[in-house]
Amino acid sequence: MDHGLRRERLIARIDEAGLDALLVTRLPNVRYLTGFTGSNAQLIVGGQGGVFLTDGRYAEQSSHEVADLERRVYLDERSPHLMGACADLGARRVGLEPEGLTYGEWQRIAEVAGPIELVPTDGQVESLRRVKDAEEVAAIARAQEAADVAFERVVLGGLREGVTERELALALDVAMRRAGADDKGFDSIVAFGEQAAEPHHDPTDRPLARGDVVKLDFGARVDGYHSDMTRTVAFGEPEARLREIRDVVAAAQAAGIEAARPGASLREVDRAARRVVEDAGLGEAFPHGLGHGVGLEIHEIPFLRRDPPEDDLLAAGTVVTIEPGVYVPGLGGVRIEDMVEVGDTRDGVLARSPRELLVL
Amino acid sequence: MDHGLRRERLIARIDEAGLDALLVTRLPNVRYLTGFTGSNAQLIVGGQGGVFLTDGRYAEQSSHEVADLERRVYLDERSPHLMGACADLGARRVGLEPEGLTYGEWQRIAEVAGPIELVPTDGQVESLRRVKDAEEVAAIARAQEAADVAFERVVLGGLREGVTERELALALDVAMRRAGADDKGFDSIVAFGEQAAEPHHDPTDRPLARGDVVKLDFGARVDGYHSDMTRTVAFGEPEARLREIRDVVAAAQAAGIEAARPGASLREVDRAARRVVEDAGLGEAFPHGLGHGVGLEIHEIPFLRRDPPEDDLLAAGTVVTIEPGVYVPGLGGVRIEDMVEVGDTRDGVLARSPRELLVL
Repeated sequence: MDHGLRRERLIARIDEAGLDALLVTRLPNVRYLTGFTGSNAQLIVGGQGGVFLTDGRYAEQSSHEVADLERRVYLDERSPHLMGACADLGARRVGLEPEGLTYGEWQRIAEVAGPIELVPTDGQVESLRRVKDAEEVAAIARAQEAADVAFERVVLGGLREGVTERELALALDVAMRRAGADDKGFDSIVAFGEQAAEPHHDPTDRPLARGDVVKLDFGARVDGYHSDMTRTVAFGEPEARLREIRDVVAAAQAAGIEAARPGASLREVDRAARRVVEDAGLGEAFPHGLGHGVGLEIHEIPFLRRDPPEDDLLAAGTVVTIEPGVYVPGLGGVRIEDMVEVGDTRDGVLARSPRELLVL
Repeated sequence: MDHGLRRERLIARIDEAGLDALLVTRLPNVRYLTGFTGSNAQLIVGGQGGVFLTDGRYAEQSSHEVADLERRVYLDERSPHLMGACADLGARRVGLEPEGLTYGEWQRIAEVAGPIELVPTDGQVESLRRVKDAEEVAAIARAQEAADVAFERVVLGGLREGVTERELALALDVAMRRAGADDKGFDSIVAFGEQAAEPHHDPTDRPLARGDVVKLDFGARVDGYHSDMTRTVAFGEPEARLREIRDVVAAAQAAGIEAARPGASLREVDRAARRVVEDAGLGEAFPHGLGHGVGLEIHEIPFLRRDPPEDDLLAAGTVVTIEPGVYVPGLGGVRIEDMVEVGDTRDGVLARSPRELLVL
């Protein structure tokens, strides 16, 4: 990945915003711009130069990963080091990330900023990250491939009565890592039977029984990039009502995937899928947004919801999930989720796992 | 765990601070006060009542986990809902957590606060969490037991030449989960040979070779509580210099454990261990703090470092790590880390895994 090129693009935006530099504090943004994989670092980027800062734990690691930037290592409260580096670059107007600092951190920086003017910015790096380049899509696709392999081996290959949600979650995690994932991308959701009525659900010791639906929301991480997929299958014949619900959710997902094209508004894509659920009289049972961007974060912009501005549009090369769900307390629930690489000529679905309500 | 009692204790602190309510936004704090295990929720606590807020994904789950509080579920931007709930409670002076909101979130809340006065507070819930009760220590001990079992099975039970750092990390994760962990507590650090010179290190495909040191920093999570342990062993006879370094680190750790007693200042505990490393001429090679609290977060107060205020003291019932390390680029490194339950009558070490530089 060409981190220098990404920083050049960012500098053009910083110049345009009338800033001398941007202090990047959101860790996925630092990784995007430098390749640094550790758990704490900040980056100052500007036309007058760049400085990478981290703490003593990462002095050695960052010397390999971020060899192309000036590096500074601190051992105590970082605010003075951050502002000192800005001053050394001669930066007077410095952009900060309002979502990349706690209120407390912002105050501590302001206390030592001296003559430096601190300017809240608005997702400058996230805007660059929103459209993925080919290498990023390839990493996401490799993460999805690990999840597809795990689904095939663990779920299609043999669910057995009595396995617990926790055991199945562990089996998925292990299978993804054996299939090349660096790690799971997030805590897997494994919900059996009536527990599938919770959109999110921490796996428990509930054993699998005949007639249960099995809702699985899981993904992998490869080179920092995530995958995200939900499949709902049945262990033995499910209740008829769940089959009806499944058909509604599948139709809603198909409508969402079809709507997720370059130039579509985020709101319109959510609407296209939600309308199908509402028309079936199940609108109240779909209590979350339709989807979200996926990349260095498992949830990132753009968010497909009811309420984004009308003029917030999907661009080609964005990777978003389309994940309608319907949940009925006491009965269970169905969600079907796929990542879509937004493009003109094909549906862009990255997963190859079957979407049917397979009876296993 | 008696969440109602915890909220009562918090209300006493809120009253004392002259506040009508505290808006709790740090997720581990919400969990501590309610038992909620999901990924998004906020809590308003005050003498006039409490309100729990979450989004639609957790409507069902929270109805089980937080049955004893008024619950509100939002489907869009949460700030108006948070301030609306404060207004409904009649709260006029509301404390906020400066480390529990991004600067941007704080601004959005301020925009809709109306007549409500927002007051930055200072770690009110963290102060309650700092000393653990018996149930919390038991959960931490169970998490440590899972890590001990994993160390015994995976490391003592048979390292083999050629295994990669990533494979060993996966084996530790799986062994901890089979031993009762809900999950690993954090991304395991597995570093072979010269890679052990990085205090933190993402496992790679480097294979294990004769003469390598093997540095393992890993832990488990049980019921939301974490464990944290580092062991350094040798695969075949290590270089003599590494044995010397190991003896220094072991002596530093012993000094730190001995110093970690009720009433000791945080600074003095760091000092006790650091002095041993400095006296050996290796002070520069120990580039991080001595340790940190462990609980619902893997890193939480108190932090044992060089620079805390002199009057910040350890109390009985606190669980902290003692983890000195010495790292030499090109050669490798040694860290030994244990969790200690601070008390008067014994060393309080929670792990049972051997600390020697075992040659395996």
